[in-house]
Order: sequence, then C-alpha cells, then structure tokens
Amino acid sequence: LKEDGKAKLLSVLAGERKKPPPVWLMRQAGRYLPEYQAVRAKAGSFWTMCTTPELAAAVTLQPIERFGFDAAIIFSDILVVPYALGLKVSFEEGIGPRLPPVKDMNGLERNPVVWAERLKPAYEALGLVRGRLDRSRALLGFAGAPWTLATYMAEGSGSPDQRAAKLWGYRDPTEFAAFLDLIGDCVAGHLIAQLDAGADAVQIFDSWASGLPAPRFADWVVRPTRRIVDAVRRAKPGARIIGFPRAATLEGYETYVRQTGVDAVSLDTAAPIGWAVQRLSSRVTLQGNLDPIALIAGGDALTEAVAQILEATEGVPFVFNLGHGILPETPLEHVAQLVTQIRGGR
Amino acid sequence: LKEDGKAKLLSVLAGERKKPPPVWLMRQAGRYLPEYQAVRAKAGSFWTMCTTPELAAAVTLQPIERFGFDAAIIFSDILVVPYALGLKVSFEEGIGPRLPPVKDMNGLERNPVVWAERLKPAYEALGLVRGRLDRSRALLGFAGAPWTLATYMAEGSGSPDQRAAKLWGYRDPTEFAAFLDLIGDCVAGHLIAQLDAGADAVQIFDSWASGLPAPRFADWVVRPTRRIVDAVRRAKPGARIIGFPRAATLEGYETYVRQTGVDAVSLDTAAPIGWAVQRLSSRVTLQGNLDPIALIAGGDALTEAVAQILEATEGVPFVFNLGHGILPETPLEHVAQLVTQIRGGR
Repeated sequence: LKEDGKAKLLSVLAGERKKPPPVWLMRQAGRYLPEYQAVRAKAGSFWTMCTTPELAAAVTLQPIERFGFDAAIIFSDILVVPYALGLKVSFEEGIGPRLPPVKDMNGLERNPVVWAERLKPAYEALGLVRGRLDRSRALLGFAGAPWTLATYMAEGSGSPDQRAAKLWGYRDPTEFAAFLDLIGDCVAGHLIAQLDAGADAVQIFDSWASGLPAPRFADWVVRPTRRIVDAVRRAKPGARIIGFPRAATLEGYETYVRQTGVDAVSLDTAAPIGWAVQRLSSRVTLQGNLDPIALIAGGDALTEAVAQILEATEGVPFVFNLGHGILPETPLEHVAQLVTQIRGGR
Repeated sequence: LKEDGKAKLLSVLAGERKKPPPVWLMRQAGRYLPEYQAVRAKAGSFWTMCTTPELAAAVTLQPIERFGFDAAIIFSDILVVPYALGLKVSFEEGIGPRLPPVKDMNGLERNPVVWAERLKPAYEALGLVRGRLDRSRALLGFAGAPWTLATYMAEGSGSPDQRAAKLWGYRDPTEFAAFLDLIGDCVAGHLIAQLDAGADAVQIFDSWASGLPAPRFADWVVRPTRRIVDAVRRAKPGARIIGFPRAATLEGYETYVRQTGVDAVSLDTAAPIGWAVQRLSSRVTLQGNLDPIALIAGGDALTEAVAQILEATEGVPFVFNLGHGILPETPLEHVAQLVTQIRGGR
C-alpha cells in the first residue's frame, strides 16, 4: 500500500509530528534530471517552459515519478510576478534573468484582472498536474516575496548585495513601502489563485533576505510577508503557508516566525537545526535544511548530515528538504539514497 | 591638539570603552577615492599596487590624510597568501581574481622562508607607512582566514556558494583539514611578520563564513582561526587580533567569540547590534556594522543608522566600521559626514 504523502505533509504543516518526515526538495524539477533536460532542449528556453502549461506540468511530475517525493511543486519562476506587473523578463543562459530596471512606480500594471490573465499559464499548469498527480501526493504552489522580487526589479537582474533595492528603500522609504505593497498585492493574488487552481499549500521564497540590518528586515521582509499571509488567510482560511527567509539572521528567523503568521518556516543550510527546534518549533513547522553541496558530495558526509537532521527534528513537526535549491551537478543516485535513508531504508 | 586615535583604538581593543568610538572603514583605501584611482591608473593593475611597497604605502595613507580615520589598514589583498603558497594570482577587471584551482596539496609551497620572501612587499609597505603615518594613528595588518582562502584556492576564483571547497571538505575531511592547517601556518606567519614590520594590530577576514552548516563552521572556520590566534599569541603575546567571520549565523558568531580567542569581532551588516551588545560584548570588543549601501544613500537613512549604532554600543568597547567593505560608488561627502557625526559634530 502506498503511503499517503499528501495527508502526511498537510498534517505536518498543521503541526503534527510524523516519523519518517515527509520530503520534497526545492528545485526538484530541475536540470539534474535527464528527463527535464530533454524537455528543456525541446522547449528552447526556460521561460517557454514556465509559460507553457503542458511543459510546466510535465516537468513538475518528473521528480515524483522518479523519486516518489511526498509533494510536487509547480514548475514556474518567481519572476512571473514582475512579468504580471508589466516587465519583460528574459533568461540568458549562464547569466541569469534580465528585466528592465524599475526606477519608480510609474508604468507598473495595477489591475488584478490583467495580473491574473498574465499568470494564467501557472494556473493551467496546476490544473493539469492536479489531474495527473497521484492522489497520495501533495501539490505546492509558490511565489517570490516582495523584497526579493524588488531586488530583481530595481536592479534589472539578480543582485547579491541587493544594492538598487536597498538604495531605493533608504532614499525613499515611503515610496519603497508602496512598491513592496503593490508587489505584495500581486503575490497574494497569485498565491490565492494557485490554491484555487489546485495547490494544497504554498511557499513564499524570500531568497535575498540576507544582509539586511534588523530594522530593514522588519520593514522589507517581515511586514510585506505578514500582509500577504493575512490576505491569503482571508481568502483561503485553511491554507497552509511555508515561508523561506533565506539566510536571515537567527534573530530575523525568530521575528519572521513570530510576526508573519506562516505555518512553517524553511531553514537555509547554515541555520542550526538544533537551535530551530529549540527556538522556533513551538510556533511553526520546520522545513529544511540539508546542504545541497552535501547532496552532491554523497558518501559518509551525506549520510551523517541527513542522520543529524533527522535526529534533531525527531520530536517536532518537520518536513525534510534542502537548505537551498538542488544543484544541476547532483548525482541521481544520491537523491535516491537520500529518500531511502529518510524513509528508514538502508 | 590632535586626539590620539592610535591609543584610543588600542585601548578599545584591550576592552576599554571610549566615547566617541574610534573609527576606520574596511577597504578605506579604495576605488571611491579619486587619489586612489590616480595611483591605480598609473600602476596599471591592482596586483602591481599590492606588490609594490611604495604604491601600497601611498594608497594606505590616502584615507587617513583625507578623513583622519583613527587607523590605517595596509593596502594588500587576502590572496597574497595563496601567492606565497605558490599559486599565480591574477585580477581581471570587472570579473575578479583568478588562480589555478587547487585539487590536492601536491605542489603547494611548504617552506616558511619562501613564504616570507614572497610576502616581503607587504612588510616593506608596512615599514614605509610606519615611517610616514602620524604617530596618533594606528596601523593595521590583515590576512584572509584559511576557510575563505580555501574557497578561492579550490574554486580558482571567488565562489559565493563555496562549492569546490565544501566538496573537498565533505569528501575528504582529513586532507581538507591538513589543507586548512597549511594555509593557517602561512596566515599565522604573515600576521606575525606584519606585527614585526610595524602593524599595531591585525584583522583576520573570513569573508565567506556564511552558508556553512554549524558542524562545518566549527571545523572550517572556528578551529583554523583558533590555531592562528594561538600561534600569533605565542609569537607576539600582547598582539590585538580582530576576527571577521562575515555573515556567520548568530550562533556562529557566539561560538567564534567563545572559542577563537580573538580580542574583537567585526560584525556584518545584518548582525543585530543590540544582540551583539547583549551576547558578545562581555567577551570581546565589537566592531561594525554600518551598511555600506546606507553610506552610498546618505541622507536621513544614513544619519539614523549611524545614530542607532552609536546609541546601542555606548556602554561597550566598540570600534565604528562598516559591515562590509566601502563601495566604489560611495560619495566622499557621505564619508566626511559619517566621521563628523561619529565624532560628535553636526
């Protein structure tokens, strides 16, 4: 009898403990899979895959078919929200995303009907996956958080030091707050529509939550996320929301957990799991946080890192995941070995 | 009468409180200064500046002359240590440093006499600065920490996810520990020789201390730093050592402070200063941690961020600095305004 991974994940997100824990991996539908590479080669571009429901659905299902993860996460990109807000997004191979840098709020699309129209491929993909996914597997939607999206929109590309967004926020805090709110409205609508389209739960990715002085973390990460969680809860009262303020300080994680209202927090690779069990687990479900590079390395280092995470989280609601997205170089057999170890095999 | 900034800095590093605090800025001899750009243009390359004592000395003194910082830090680069270990280092404009990726320990220079010979330009530059620097200003030496240097050496370039070094460490922990020890021996010798050549104190930069699971942070950041601190203390018992495990987790900072033996810890931009005062300041002097991007922004955001740091650290031994190096785009007048505000002017 196949175990019900969907029921398991949803009950853990609701605060129950399960042994073994449910497992899925960030970016599990990705370049480390040869079957993904095949679709990618035919599609011609990453963005085409994101915006073609049939292709997005196909790659979403691949890692479930190969590894039996407890949840599928819809194949999409956080930059669909800037696209909905009116920005042309392109992806250059080996360079990353490009979009026109946003200097002020003029020209950004403010009509939710237009947003929904532009985001429709994601909802159609969710519908297709819902129809094909085994009932025993959960389906996750996701979106980027306003701060992280603002860093891309202000810079016109990825920016490890978040310079353009920070400068905007420092120089004009009022307009920048309005900018984050506009993005947040679009994100909230996108998450609600994904839940309507068949997602069982959603994750908010704040991939560039690092490097912020504490007061700015409160203004730019915590407050906008709280606003989104409130909006999603109003529309979908029972919805489960996972937040991922990647590489926040530990004090930042605590504030985030206390103030945003998320059901679960995803921990980055450096966040000490023992600390999270002690300080966060009474309030939220934990998720994470195997180093994706340990998954490439394999061997004893991998086995020990996995064992340590399982042991530390045994007494608390926990979803096994990575601390960051799976990397293209990851050997398939290490992923299979990981799933076996988590589920108690050898 | 000019205040004795050197005595002030050294007494703060010894655990005294001073109001106003001493101030210097990481990368203060750098591209934001037109007089630096002039030397850089004549030198032709960054590496030539690092390895030509007269040029290194000249740019080291520039920010002291312009802004009157309490300390000069010798102009050099953390990659002089890999160079001493036998690697050819080059700097490509706009790309960053390149060196041949190190796959094992064969071929690395192990003779301290050869290391010292290759590092001689730094010592000569320190001698020149010592002779020209106002007696009321301190002179700092520095080196990269073994982990951070290992990330460059294993990758052959900068690597934000520290992949090659992590893979080495996960796959062969014993050899990797030996690799860190060899680098650490060279670093320790380099710091001792800088103190001999006239440095009043030294800083150890672990710029890539982020992203490490806690047990690896202990093995790869804390232990090698402790080894260096011990070696420097044996050779120079009174030497003051500042450590900078940039973007470590807050638990990582605590472990670092408890276990390495540094006199002071430099905090990155995100480390909450109030937390550091509470949890670290009874053991070490704090240094930091203004966001370099706030220094670009200027205005109220800058004034408030500086005021907040000054207020939070009033009761503890503290050195004002940035949370990361000063950026080339920084307006000179913002730096002047910063120094004035710290020293109690308007």
